[in-house]
Amino acid sequence: MTPTDPRFAPVAELFERFAQEDPAYAGQLALYYRGEPVLDLSVGPDRAPQARPEPGGDGGAEDPAFTREVMTGVFSCSKGAAGVVMALLVQDGVLDLDAPVAAYWPEYGQAGKEATTVRQALSHQAGSLGVAGGFTVEEYNNSQLAAARLAAAPPNWRPGAVFSYHGLSIGILMEELVRRITGSTLQEVYEERIRAPHGIDFYLGLPESEEPRYRDVLKPEAGPLPFIDPFGYLGTAFNSTGGFTREDGEPGELLDLPNDRAIRAAGMSSAGGVANARGLARLYAAASTGIVGEDGTRSEPLLTEHTQTIMAEDQVFGPDRADGLVKAFGVVFMKPTPEKDFGSWRVFGHEGANGSFGYADPSYGIAFGYVPARGEDGGTLSRNGQLSVRVRQAVLQALAGG
Amino acid sequence: MTPTDPRFAPVAELFERFAQEDPAYAGQLALYYRGEPVLDLSVGPDRAPQARPEPGGDGGAEDPAFTREVMTGVFSCSKGAAGVVMALLVQDGVLDLDAPVAAYWPEYGQAGKEATTVRQALSHQAGSLGVAGGFTVEEYNNSQLAAARLAAAPPNWRPGAVFSYHGLSIGILMEELVRRITGSTLQEVYEERIRAPHGIDFYLGLPESEEPRYRDVLKPEAGPLPFIDPFGYLGTAFNSTGGFTREDGEPGELLDLPNDRAIRAAGMSSAGGVANARGLARLYAAASTGIVGEDGTRSEPLLTEHTQTIMAEDQVFGPDRADGLVKAFGVVFMKPTPEKDFGSWRVFGHEGANGSFGYADPSYGIAFGYVPARGEDGGTLSRNGQLSVRVRQAVLQALAGG
Amino acid sequence: MTPTDPRFAPVAELFERFAQEDPAYAGQLALYYRGEPVLDLSVGPDRAPQARPEPGGDGGAEDPAFTREVMTGVFSCSKGAAGVVMALLVQDGVLDLDAPVAAYWPEYGQAGKEATTVRQALSHQAGSLGVAGGFTVEEYNNSQLAAARLAAAPPNWRPGAVFSYHGLSIGILMEELVRRITGSTLQEVYEERIRAPHGIDFYLGLPESEEPRYRDVLKPEAGPLPFIDPFGYLGTAFNSTGGFTREDGEPGELLDLPNDRAIRAAGMSSAGGVANARGLARLYAAASTGIVGEDGTRSEPLLTEHTQTIMAEDQVFGPDRADGLVKAFGVVFMKPTPEKDFGSWRVFGHEGANGSFGYADPSYGIAFGYVPARGEDGGTLSRNGQLSVRVRQAVLQALAGG
Repeated sequence: MTPTDPRFAPVAELFERFAQEDPAYAGQLALYYRGEPVLDLSVGPDRAPQARPEPGGDGGAEDPAFTREVMTGVFSCSKGAAGVVMALLVQDGVLDLDAPVAAYWPEYGQAGKEATTVRQALSHQAGSLGVAGGFTVEEYNNSQLAAARLAAAPPNWRPGAVFSYHGLSIGILMEELVRRITGSTLQEVYEERIRAPHGIDFYLGLPESEEPRYRDVLKPEAGPLPFIDPFGYLGTAFNSTGGFTREDGEPGELLDLPNDRAIRAAGMSSAGGVANARGLARLYAAASTGIVGEDGTRSEPLLTEHTQTIMAEDQVFGPDRADGLVKAFGVVFMKPTPEKDFGSWRVFGHEGANGSFGYADPSYGIAFGYVPARGEDGGTLSRNGQLSVRVRQAVLQALAGG
Repeated sequence: MTPTDPRFAPVAELFERFAQEDPAYAGQLALYYRGEPVLDLSVGPDRAPQARPEPGGDGGAEDPAFTREVMTGVFSCSKGAAGVVMALLVQDGVLDLDAPVAAYWPEYGQAGKEATTVRQALSHQAGSLGVAGGFTVEEYNNSQLAAARLAAAPPNWRPGAVFSYHGLSIGILMEELVRRITGSTLQEVYEERIRAPHGIDFYLGLPESEEPRYRDVLKPEAGPLPFIDPFGYLGTAFNSTGGFTREDGEPGELLDLPNDRAIRAAGMSSAGGVANARGLARLYAAASTGIVGEDGTRSEPLLTEHTQTIMAEDQVFGPDRADGLVKAFGVVFMKPTPEKDFGSWRVFGHEGANGSFGYADPSYGIAFGYVPARGEDGGTLSRNGQLSVRVRQAVLQALAGG
Repeated sequence: MTPTDPRFAPVAELFERFAQEDPAYAGQLALYYRGEPVLDLSVGPDRAPQARPEPGGDGGAEDPAFTREVMTGVFSCSKGAAGVVMALLVQDGVLDLDAPVAAYWPEYGQAGKEATTVRQALSHQAGSLGVAGGFTVEEYNNSQLAAARLAAAPPNWRPGAVFSYHGLSIGILMEELVRRITGSTLQEVYEERIRAPHGIDFYLGLPESEEPRYRDVLKPEAGPLPFIDPFGYLGTAFNSTGGFTREDGEPGELLDLPNDRAIRAAGMSSAGGVANARGLARLYAAASTGIVGEDGTRSEPLLTEHTQTIMAEDQVFGPDRADGLVKAFGVVFMKPTPEKDFGSWRVFGHEGANGSFGYADPSYGIAFGYVPARGEDGGTLSRNGQLSVRVRQAVLQALAGG
C-alpha cells in the first residue's frame, strides 16, 4: 500500500501541473481504488508536511502549510456526507423515498406541501428554498428552529413541477427528517455510524480538539455582483436577506461560513463540513467499496450495491429553475452533466462552492477527493473536472494493462 | 398621494433616459406601492398631457400625444386580466385546477384530451394550440365558435408531456371555461367584478365611448421573416393559416390585431385588451394589495394571499417546445426566468407582444404597468426588464431607509 | 405519373446544387405527395443509372454509381421501419402503450424496472441504455440474447425522470416486445406486413439476392474524438465497451456497422437497415397516405389517422440527458426541434447517423426519403433539413397555386 500507485501517475502529474502553472495554487488530491488509497497528495507553496500548521494564521495565499493533513471548509461536499446518512436510513428501511415528508414530519404537511415526497425533498424539487427574511445563523446551527419556519411556509413552486438547487435548505430538510426518524441529529448519526468507525478526516461538526488542523477558506478575487433579488429564487435559496456577520464584525459571504467557529462546530449538513481531500475520498470509499485496512482485509461497504443504485438514480436533469444552468441530481447526490462529466452513470458525489469535490464511481471502483486552498470555479473546465477525466482514463489503462 | 413618490425617483430617471437616448421613443410607466400610486408617467415627443388626443390620427411616431391617459393595444397583457378572472373562479371554489377540462366542458374530452386538466390547459401544457386551417377573426371574437373546433381536434402532443405557449388559444380555453361555469362571458365577468368597480383603464372589450382615447399600436421596422410552417407548432399557435385582413384591406399581422375596431370591441382575452400603463398597474394593485382611495382606506384585494400563491406557483419552466426559448408559467400568469428576471418568486404578471407589461410582486407590495407606443422587444435587456430591476432596488432602499 | 413533378422543381434544384457545390457529393432524394412519387433523384459523379452497380467495388468517393437503385446503410432510419411495426401492434390492439413492459416481457420487471411502461421504453425514458461491458455483435443480431441481459440490469436512471436517446438498445426493446407478443421477429413482421406487399427498397435484413445493390457506407473525414466514458450515458448507449471488428479485421466504428454482411443480414432494428431514398419515402407513403399504383388506385394506408396521431405525439422534448442536445421524440419516431425543424407538429420519421432521413408529414401529405453516399452531419443546417423546408414551401405553393 503505497501512497501513490504508479498506475495513477498521470493523474498526479496533472495535479502537479496546476501548481507549476500557478505559483499561488495550493490543493489536495486523494484517490482510493478498490478500497486502497492510491493517491494522497498536496501541492502548493512549500508543501512539505508539517506536524501541525500554526492555528490562527492569517490564511493568506502565502501561507506555506496546506499539507495533506490540513482541513478546511468543503461547503456543499457536506451534502455528500449527509447523503450517506440518508442512504443508511433508506437501507435500514426506516426512510421511504416515496412517502410524503409529512409522514415523518407532520408539520411540513401544510400550505401546499401536504403531498411532497421525501424523494422530491431530497432532489431539489420540493420548493422549500428558504423563508422570507431569511434564517439566522443560529437557526441553521440549531436546525429544528429553521425547520419549524420552513414547515410553515408555502412552497416556492408547485412541488415536483420544477427543480432548483436548495443550496442551504436541503440541509434543514435532511436534518429534520433524521431527527424525527432516529431521535438523534444527523451529525450524531454521521459521527457514530460513519466517520468515527472509519477514521475519516471529514467532520460535520468539528470538535475543539481538531481545531488546530483547520485552515481558513481563502477567497478568490471577485468583481462586483449583479443585482440578486433577495426574494427571488436564488436570493431565497442562498438566504441573502438573512445576512451573517463574520467573527471580525464584517458582513459575511457564503465562503466565510466555515471560517466561523460556531458554524463549523455545529457542522450544518448543507455547507458546514470540514475535511481534507483524503477525508473526502475515504468517506466515499467507505460508502461504496469498503476500505482495505493495514491487515489487508476490506471493510464491508456502508452501502449495498442496491442502495448505491437507488441514491445515484437521476431524479432531475436540465436547467435549474433559478439560474438556468444545467444540473443533475440523484437522491441528495450530484450527478454529472454533459458540461461537467465527472463520472459514469453510476457515480454519486457532491461539489462544494470552493471547488472541493468528492465522489464514488462504482463503475470504476474509485473514490475521489479534491480540496483547493482558495475558492475556485467548479465549472466545466475546472481543475476537479480535468482530474476526474484523467482518473477514469488511468483506471481504464490499469484495467487494460493489468 | 403624489403622482411621483421621491423614493422611486431612480426608476423615473431610468424611464426618462429612454426618451433622451431615443428621440422617437414614447411610453408610459406606472407603479403602485402598497396600494398607492407612486409613479404615473409618460415620456416621448411633446408628452404634455392633453385632455383627449385627436381620434383617427395617423398613429405615426411623430404623433406627439402619447399621454398617460391614452390607451393602446397591450396584447398578451390581456391574459393577465383574464388570469385575475380565472383566479376569482378558483377562489370562489367553482373552478378546480386539478379537474379535467371536460368536467366543465364535456365536448373537450375527446380525441386524446379526455384527461387533460384545467391546470394543464391554463399553463400551456394541453397541446390545444389551434386548428388546421386556422381560426377566423370572427371565431376569435365569438369564441364559442373557436372553442367547438378546438374541442374536436386532437392535442398537438401528449397532454402534459411538454409545454408551448398557447399565444392565442389559451384565450379560447379560458373563455369557454368561464362561459360554461358562470353562464357569462369572461369579458362580462371582468367588467363587472374587476374593471368597473376599480375604475381601471384596462379593457377587455373597449366600449365605443372610450374609442377617442385609443391610439393605434405602432409597428417596429422589421426585416424579412424566416419560413414559419403554418402547420408547425408556432404556425398553429399563431394562427398563421387563419390570416386576417386589416381595416385598410391589407393583410394583417399580429401587431395589427388591436388596431381593428371589431377585435378591440370584442376584447379577446388572449390579445385583444386595450390599456394604458396606469390601467395595467391598477389592475394588479386591485388584485394583490388593494387600492388606497382618496379617503385613505384601502380596498380589499381581489385575490387572497392564498389565491395569489396558487396562481403564481410555477407549473412549467424550460425551453418552449415550439421555439426553444426558456419560459416559465404559473397558472395563466408568466413567471420570471433567469434571462428575464422581472421579480421575486411570488411575482405574477404577463407581457405583451409589443413589450407592454403588467405584474404584481407580493414580496415587494408593488404593481407595475408599462406600455410603449411602438412595438419593442420584450427580451432580456428590454426596457421593461430594466425598469423591473430598478423598481425592486428602489423598494429595497425604501424598506431599508424607511 | 412522372418521376419529377414540376411543382417540386425548386426542391430538385436545391438538391442539384449540393452536387454542383461539392463535386465529391453523391446522394439520393425521393418524395411522395398524396401517395404519388413526385421526385426520385440521385446526384453525384456520373449519376447515369446503371442496371446494376458492380458488387464488391471499393466504395470510394470516386465510385460513379450511386444511382437511385443503389442501397446503403441508413442506420437509425431503421427505427422508422420498426416504428411502423410497433404502430401496427398498437393499432391491432395487442400492444398497450400504457402497460408495463413487464406485462409482455416479465423478466424485464426487475431491478427497479417493474413499473416502466411501454410508452417510456419506446420514447427513450426507460433508462435501458445498455449493459456494463457492452453487447457483442452476435447479441445484437440475436437480440433475445441481448434482451435477457438488458432485462437483468438496473435502469440507468429513475424510469421516466429523464430521457436520453437509446441509440442501439431501443432496437432490443422493440424486438423483444414483438417476439413476446407475436411469436415472430420484428424483422419477419416488417417483411410480411409492410415491405414485401408494398415493394419497398428498405430492408431490415438484406437478403443475399439483394446484395449486389448494396454499397458500402462511406465515412467522412473526422478529427480526434474527445474522451467518451465507456461507463457513462453515451458510452453505454453506443456500446463503446462492446467493440466490433470489421470484416477486414480492423476495429469498427458505428458507421461501419452495415458494411458488415452479418449485421445487414440480421437487420437490427436500431441501426441495421439498408435502403435507398425511394425506399424510405415509399415506406412512409405506405404508412401514412397509401401508395397510388399504376392503375391509379391508392392502397389503404398501413396506419389510420388515429394511429399516426398516437405515434407522432410528443413524449419528450428538451436536452438529452447524455449529450445535452435538444431532442424530441414521439413513440419511437423522431420529432422536429426548433433547431432542426423538419416538419409540422404531425410529422413522424427518423434520421440516421450518416444523415439519411425518412419521414411522413400528414399535414402536407408528403413522404420523404434522403440518403447520402458519404456520412454527413444531420444537424441544424444539414442538407436533409434544408430539403425539408423547401419541400414544405413547394407543397404550400402547390396548394395555393392549384
